[in-house]
Amino acid sequence: MAHINLPISDELGREFPGIVGPMTFRPETAAPINELVNILLRGESTLSRGERELIATHVSAQNDCFFCQTIHGAVAAVHLDDEALVHSIKTDWVNARVPAKLKALLNIAGKVQLGGKNVLAQDVEDARAHGATDREIHDTVLIAAVFCMCNRYVDGLGTWAPENPDIYRSNAREIVARGYESVTETAIAHVTR
Amino acid sequence: MAHINLPISDELGREFPGIVGPMTFRPETAAPINELVNILLRGESTLSRGERELIATHVSAQNDCFFCQTIHGAVAAVHLDDEALVHSIKTDWVNARVPAKLKALLNIAGKVQLGGKNVLAQDVEDARAHGATDREIHDTVLIAAVFCMCNRYVDGLGTWAPENPDIYRSNAREIVARGYESVTETAIAHVTR
Repeated sequence: MAHINLPISDELGREFPGIVGPMTFRPETAAPINELVNILLRGESTLSRGERELIATHVSAQNDCFFCQTIHGAVAAVHLDDEALVHSIKTDWVNARVPAKLKALLNIAGKVQLGGKNVLAQDVEDARAHGATDREIHDTVLIAAVFCMCNRYVDGLGTWAPENPDIYRSNAREIVARGYESVTETAIAHVTR
Repeated sequence: MAHINLPISDELGREFPGIVGPMTFRPETAAPINELVNILLRGESTLSRGERELIATHVSAQNDCFFCQTIHGAVAAVHLDDEALVHSIKTDWVNARVPAKLKALLNIAGKVQLGGKNVLAQDVEDARAHGATDREIHDTVLIAAVFCMCNRYVDGLGTWAPENPDIYRSNAREIVARGYESVTETAIAHVTR
């Protein structure tokens, strides 16, 4: 049970998992959060959707947020068709087999996770030297910052998360097909109390 | 100069200060961030606008984000007509002269700043014992999480911030009168390059 009374999702009396719980509790704030995440992770960009989900997964893993790192890792794995790569981002990102530009952006995202002032001019220069644009650097910093928000929202309210990876694989396919707001809208339509 | 090339605000070649810089660079993501902050800090709530700005100021001070703690502190001071109280929140919140319920919520917000898992059932029980509702606890956690995002966005991109407190006092009066989105809209209309 979360720290506050969240809507119930089924006859077993369970809350919706992870961020979906508080989003059904407060749909007014869920809407702009979903809009922001859709723009950053699914909108027009020179970074692929899979690359952007890896940045979200990396930050969520550094914040030790089980729900966020598992669902965004599952979404990344659908986009990239590579669960092993996602596992390596979560456990040993420095040695993950990703292009040098993405590794430089993962480095910046990890610095943002520790606190914004950890990002040094040299980190940004390294990313530029590997071809990163200002827009890519901006979006990397903001994706990292957004997941520092989402991770704290999920864990600060003590939400629960299923352990079965097949649940995340299934939800990831829905997110890839229909976007982040669809998850909240489906959940709100299925609140049983 | 920030880590990336941001729009220029005046004939002196200066960027817009703090979060306004990257918001003019990427208006698509600025819109949902402003909407989220308006709902949480200015929307319908049983916490006053001044109390909610104190929570934002507290988290921004803990994250050592000069721009955010100064502008939200200035907004809180307008709402509460008490600059000394804002100063005590930034420097010694445990002994600040605020009601017990708000102090319990400031404690939760500070735990969220450290990481969501730091919020314990006892912290939430303490807030409830002082009259906090589930909605107030939810909004406190999300305000704290949102400012962990905004602080990282501001400092992760290396934005500049003016030092003169009168600039923040003036901007705070505009925010109180017209809302957060008005600042971004005014800035975008005045981009000189």
